[in-house]
Amino acid sequence: MADPRFFTVSGPFTLAQLAKIAGAEIAPGADAAATFDDIAPLAAAGPRQVSFLDNRRYVEQFAVSKAGACIVDPAFAERAPKGMALLLTKRPYRGYALVAQAFYPRPPVAPGVDPTAVIDAKARLGAGCRVEAGAVIAAQAEIGARCLIGANAVIGPGVVLGEDSRVGACASLHFCRVGARALIHSGVRIGERGFGFAMEPDGLVEVPQVGRVIVGDDVEIGANSTVDRGTGPDTVIGDGTRIDNLVQIGHNVQLGRGCVVVAQAGIAGSTKLGDGVVIAAQAGLTGHLSIGKGARVAAQAGVMRDVPEGGAVGGSPAQPMPVYLRGAAFLARLSKRKGE
Amino acid sequence: MADPRFFTVSGPFTLAQLAKIAGAEIAPGADAAATFDDIAPLAAAGPRQVSFLDNRRYVEQFAVSKAGACIVDPAFAERAPKGMALLLTKRPYRGYALVAQAFYPRPPVAPGVDPTAVIDAKARLGAGCRVEAGAVIAAQAEIGARCLIGANAVIGPGVVLGEDSRVGACASLHFCRVGARALIHSGVRIGERGFGFAMEPDGLVEVPQVGRVIVGDDVEIGANSTVDRGTGPDTVIGDGTRIDNLVQIGHNVQLGRGCVVVAQAGIAGSTKLGDGVVIAAQAGLTGHLSIGKGARVAAQAGVMRDVPEGGAVGGSPAQPMPVYLRGAAFLARLSKRKGE
Amino acid sequence: MADPRFFTVSGPFTLAQLAKIAGAEIAPGADAAATFDDIAPLAAAGPRQVSFLDNRRYVEQFAVSKAGACIVDPAFAERAPKGMALLLTKRPYRGYALVAQAFYPRPPVAPGVDPTAVIDAKARLGAGCRVEAGAVIAAQAEIGARCLIGANAVIGPGVVLGEDSRVGACASLHFCRVGARALIHSGVRIGERGFGFAMEPDGLVEVPQVGRVIVGDDVEIGANSTVDRGTGPDTVIGDGTRIDNLVQIGHNVQLGRGCVVVAQAGIAGSTKLGDGVVIAAQAGLTGHLSIGKGARVAAQAGVMRDVPEGGAVGGSPAQPMPVYLRGAAFLARLSKRKGE
Repeated sequence: MADPRFFTVSGPFTLAQLAKIAGAEIAPGADAAATFDDIAPLAAAGPRQVSFLDNRRYVEQFAVSKAGACIVDPAFAERAPKGMALLLTKRPYRGYALVAQAFYPRPPVAPGVDPTAVIDAKARLGAGCRVEAGAVIAAQAEIGARCLIGANAVIGPGVVLGEDSRVGACASLHFCRVGARALIHSGVRIGERGFGFAMEPDGLVEVPQVGRVIVGDDVEIGANSTVDRGTGPDTVIGDGTRIDNLVQIGHNVQLGRGCVVVAQAGIAGSTKLGDGVVIAAQAGLTGHLSIGKGARVAAQAGVMRDVPEGGAVGGSPAQPMPVYLRGAAFLARLSKRKGE
Repeated sequence: MADPRFFTVSGPFTLAQLAKIAGAEIAPGADAAATFDDIAPLAAAGPRQVSFLDNRRYVEQFAVSKAGACIVDPAFAERAPKGMALLLTKRPYRGYALVAQAFYPRPPVAPGVDPTAVIDAKARLGAGCRVEAGAVIAAQAEIGARCLIGANAVIGPGVVLGEDSRVGACASLHFCRVGARALIHSGVRIGERGFGFAMEPDGLVEVPQVGRVIVGDDVEIGANSTVDRGTGPDTVIGDGTRIDNLVQIGHNVQLGRGCVVVAQAGIAGSTKLGDGVVIAAQAGLTGHLSIGKGARVAAQAGVMRDVPEGGAVGGSPAQPMPVYLRGAAFLARLSKRKGE
Repeated sequence: MADPRFFTVSGPFTLAQLAKIAGAEIAPGADAAATFDDIAPLAAAGPRQVSFLDNRRYVEQFAVSKAGACIVDPAFAERAPKGMALLLTKRPYRGYALVAQAFYPRPPVAPGVDPTAVIDAKARLGAGCRVEAGAVIAAQAEIGARCLIGANAVIGPGVVLGEDSRVGACASLHFCRVGARALIHSGVRIGERGFGFAMEPDGLVEVPQVGRVIVGDDVEIGANSTVDRGTGPDTVIGDGTRIDNLVQIGHNVQLGRGCVVVAQAGIAGSTKLGDGVVIAAQAGLTGHLSIGKGARVAAQAGVMRDVPEGGAVGGSPAQPMPVYLRGAAFLARLSKRKGE
């Protein structure tokens, strides 16, 4: 289904292979040796394609889908159309993600340094790197093996980048150490000056920002997001954390492992997030807060107080989720009544 | 009025020419052969300049303006100062826009490829293109005639760009097809990986993003905005849609024709907008919504439900505009009373 | 304390020197000739380092700190651990900022033009400038002495940049005049087309944007922020104003002197701010407003009316701060009660 102009499909895979990849069981009656060529959404899939059902909303589409195979929760198996091979798992979206990775593995980095790239003689470049046209790598930078430095990206002096990391076009990295397998998308800004100054009646007095940005392994940072360097302490992004587009991470912020920060959210200086925290889109967290492990912040929330482990908050100013929802519902009811 | 360092004024134009351009009628008594040199605001304009009145607020300025000519609704004609030539139309701002375009037409693209631009041998470049210094055009990209690729911009492999389109400095386009006459401003990111993964207790499992971004004709995308590519379906921007700065468009989003998305708004994955939808600044739309034709979303609104054709919503969570306004007014009254 | 890979510390300084730099008095008993090597936070500092106490919250840390010297308000002096040299001032954070600047002065620009930079023959470059790899400076641009143009940055035709200004990597400046000592961070977009058009039933009619951006002296603009050029009038940023990351400044906006605009805030077209206005993070100001000198806008506020001199507003739609806070508190109480 994917446009061959941009993507190359792998496979085919047998149903047995797909079951293993997806961590699923083949439902009785299906041919484990049957082969499949591609993935596709339920409504578009044909007999040689694999689809998935993850959301109750799409059961009707599932019931009439022409997909040859489908990854599905056993609870919905009985709604399957006749002849569809079923891959049963309690985690169908996870299964689909793994199958999709098999059909569309991330293309390996094609090594080579474009002659227009500018690599300082004192920079170190690992084996198998690709450095695209116009990219700039400054003195003392150390780039691990098999990294991709996109066209017109800039790697500042002394920056360290782990193996198998990819930096998108026109991104810039300064004052930072980044781990392995990072995905730094186009236009990301890492390591700019934190917004630090003393506000005095006679003007603003700049505070030097002499910390770094430390990014763990397996981190993704979305297009045009910004991560400022620390004031003295470092700004830290934990392993496996994923950050969406246009997100602002202030100086000295610490994100735990496996956090998710959705588009246009912002986290102000020195706030600390535990592992697995989810910050939804356009939420804002003020500075110097502590957000406990596994906490969730709703979209557009304005968080001004600490959030305990496992807590969930919403609204601006943010409150525990049940309080916020009651308040919103109450106001909505009242407004409707007044309008009658 | 415009700084000649940056802009070149055309003209002069006769009052008759201006009337034709603006779609206006010359009020009785004015000399259709009189010429005018430039546009200017009411307060600054002189006898050889054309101004306009579009907002009742500025009637007093109009009444004492020294502008030689003014584009104005007939309803205000009687307030005009003596000797001012009037161009009468019910749509004075439209008239002004057209007249301003006549005085300041978009400069044509001056063809030429800077020797420092890096154009892959397998890329195709139409006639009359301008490719500025440091721009990179990758293999299999196809650039239509008379396009402008700004300094240090990056056009990724296979990207298609229609005729007369302009890409600003340091912008990057990947995995996309863009129509004719596009205005892609500086720092825009088109085609980055959508923010897709399965969230599992044992971590995040990445979902490959193998869709494209399809941008129609006559589309504008503002500085540093981001438009992610689809998961499998495409992300689509309809003809004539205008997007402001720092806007986030998630994967699989579909925007209709002639939509307007104002600065810092965000639209999450798979949401669909009909034609002519207006999303005001800093509004956020959650995923998988359907926003009907001509709907309007107020600034900072947080939209979590479908909006019907022609609907108007505001607040976070968003409600129909009258409900939102009553709620806000009610709360404001109450707060004031409590404070007495 | 700072990573020598990225930062170079100056000094050492005697206590007497530090007192003079900080505008502080040495508390009785301390040795004015004692020397110190660096700055450090209270909890990490050792006997050869200088720290500060600015926030009552950290008094306990102060009381057991091993810092050799500390900048502190006289009110807390009696809580100091034995042997700590005290630098007394009513403005300890300001004092710290100045001391930190002494230990970590901004490194001077190392002059030189990278051979891959592209400088038009008709551009003018002052003495002592540094132009990094891949930077592009167009015709008629005028760059003052000792400026730094970062890697892959783009200075458009006719742009004027004052002395000692610094432009970050991949930033782009067009249609603007920027004063002296500016800090324009990476990815900033100055001078793109303002989002101006007439919205008509039959479509959008573009309004040419023929104004400039005028940036005063000592201005900072954060990473990936955008400042659009004016419609005819200019967009103006006053002297000493500091703008954080991902901020949107619309066309014709005027910011006074010494304003602070925090991350992800947005200011719509033609709004005017007096001197010393503070706009907190993610706040939005609609167009054509007047915000008085010294006014404060809270985080996430949505300002739709003028704010008087010295005013403070919060909430969306924004209200005077006391009204907003009462409303929020009232709603919170009510929601809690309903939930019991």
